[in-house]
Amino acid sequence: MRSRGMSLVAETIASIRPLNNEAAWAADERLDSLTKPAGSLGYLEEIVRRYAAIRHDGSARMGSGAIAVFVADHGVASEGVSAFPQSVTAEMLRNIASGGAAISVLARRFGYELKVIDVGVKIDTSATPLEGVIYRRVGAGITLIAPSAMVGRGTGLDDAGIRRKTEVIVGALHRHRGALDDGASMLAALGGFEIAAMAGVCLAGAALNVPVVVDGFIATAAAAVAERIRPGLFEHLFFSHRSAEGGHARALEHFKVRPILDLDLRLGEGTGAALAMQVIESALDLFHNMATFASAGVTSKL
Amino acid sequence: MRSRGMSLVAETIASIRPLNNEAAWAADERLDSLTKPAGSLGYLEEIVRRYAAIRHDGSARMGSGAIAVFVADHGVASEGVSAFPQSVTAEMLRNIASGGAAISVLARRFGYELKVIDVGVKIDTSATPLEGVIYRRVGAGITLIAPSAMVGRGTGLDDAGIRRKTEVIVGALHRHRGALDDGASMLAALGGFEIAAMAGVCLAGAALNVPVVVDGFIATAAAAVAERIRPGLFEHLFFSHRSAEGGHARALEHFKVRPILDLDLRLGEGTGAALAMQVIESALDLFHNMATFASAGVTSKL
Repeated sequence: MRSRGMSLVAETIASIRPLNNEAAWAADERLDSLTKPAGSLGYLEEIVRRYAAIRHDGSARMGSGAIAVFVADHGVASEGVSAFPQSVTAEMLRNIASGGAAISVLARRFGYELKVIDVGVKIDTSATPLEGVIYRRVGAGITLIAPSAMVGRGTGLDDAGIRRKTEVIVGALHRHRGALDDGASMLAALGGFEIAAMAGVCLAGAALNVPVVVDGFIATAAAAVAERIRPGLFEHLFFSHRSAEGGHARALEHFKVRPILDLDLRLGEGTGAALAMQVIESALDLFHNMATFASAGVTSKL
Repeated sequence: MRSRGMSLVAETIASIRPLNNEAAWAADERLDSLTKPAGSLGYLEEIVRRYAAIRHDGSARMGSGAIAVFVADHGVASEGVSAFPQSVTAEMLRNIASGGAAISVLARRFGYELKVIDVGVKIDTSATPLEGVIYRRVGAGITLIAPSAMVGRGTGLDDAGIRRKTEVIVGALHRHRGALDDGASMLAALGGFEIAAMAGVCLAGAALNVPVVVDGFIATAAAAVAERIRPGLFEHLFFSHRSAEGGHARALEHFKVRPILDLDLRLGEGTGAALAMQVIESALDLFHNMATFASAGVTSKL
């Protein structure tokens, strides 16, 4: 199993091509022909250019959007670093799949397919599978921790909780200091499964010319691991929002990434991605459906 | 006409009530019952609370959205402060109404009614009216200037253009320095008609408990005039985005306003409002349609 997995990863990385600049230029030419002052759609124009370059398609055709939520228990939860008991993971898995969670509401609102993937929830529901859940369980939680020392309040830790979380993370980083140079061993040492899965999605998206929208702090950690595995990967990704979780802003700055939204979200279900995908689709809608100066008979710039 | 107009304004101002805090608290209580960590929807929760307070409705019922675009020629255009010739105003009036402009595309996308109102375009098309245009012409442009010394590149001025624009604005502010203390005389001296119309919309929205989303630099100038006319009005308004037009960020800071989006837009048709209204509606959709801890059987915080 392992060698097959490794070869899929290697194959995926090998098939990632650089962004297509010609596609970006073609998109740019059309953007400048639309009935608006050049550049006046601001970051929306940058989004269209990059979308075209990622897709290798100057006409920036839209696909249909999907949201993937990877659910797992991280072993570090047993160290008392979360404001919620671990049983909530399985309960929220059910709630997301049955339509009651925030991301369920937004996916429904915008017509995005919602894929909920159990990659290692501690309470195993796969024997009587929950409707709407895809089971790809790597295990039942792991005992190590998240690849970051930038500790936040998470779902609602008090000050003592934050101190505890910081100690746990500093300890684990020290213990695994030998594994921090290389993306794959970093994942093996510090996990969790959901982070490994999301790093895989980032790599696979780039290989397939599919723009991936990275949502929030934990997914950004996954993207950072993917960037470590395949330098330059970041330019294939969009980042949905700047999380209220303290370390996230610093991570985005470090990677010189501009998030699309800044709404102080810290929910972690992909809600920021759903909202940001609407902005991306709006930008593409404008790109495809605005009149040009020629078609509308509007005078160009003086 | 004038006295009737003045009495409508006075009546409108008199019927503006303070925000309803009880409605905000009721909304807050429901927000905390939803299956998410308390406060984790960040600014979306603040939006719901304020929406409820503006509507005087703790259940924050959603209405249908509409976009109003007020179109006029500002007399200052004849001073050479714009990158486009003035004939573009009538051409864009037609383009917006016939569906080719950026705001036409977004209004269609999101199902918002689009109201295009000619309040004083220099080229008068009302004799053979354009389909989809509402004519409320106060005149055909005016000869004075915008209430701000915060000069930007607008639709694409070069450096000489910016210097010229600054001189014109400084000159006009000096000439009308006696009229700058009072909102109504400020409008009369510095206009334009579209700014007066939008100031009216801000006041009327507050009087009718309808949340108004103020879009961009010029509409913010209108809102500032409305705030001057009726102090405290700002808390009845949402601000869609932080414009790339330099002075706008400073204006928002001055008024301690947090815009919903920050996308470097500088288009001026209400495009930012359409996108921000989607964020507001998404927040309300979450508020209404997420499961509660009780309904979903999810364990609350430890």
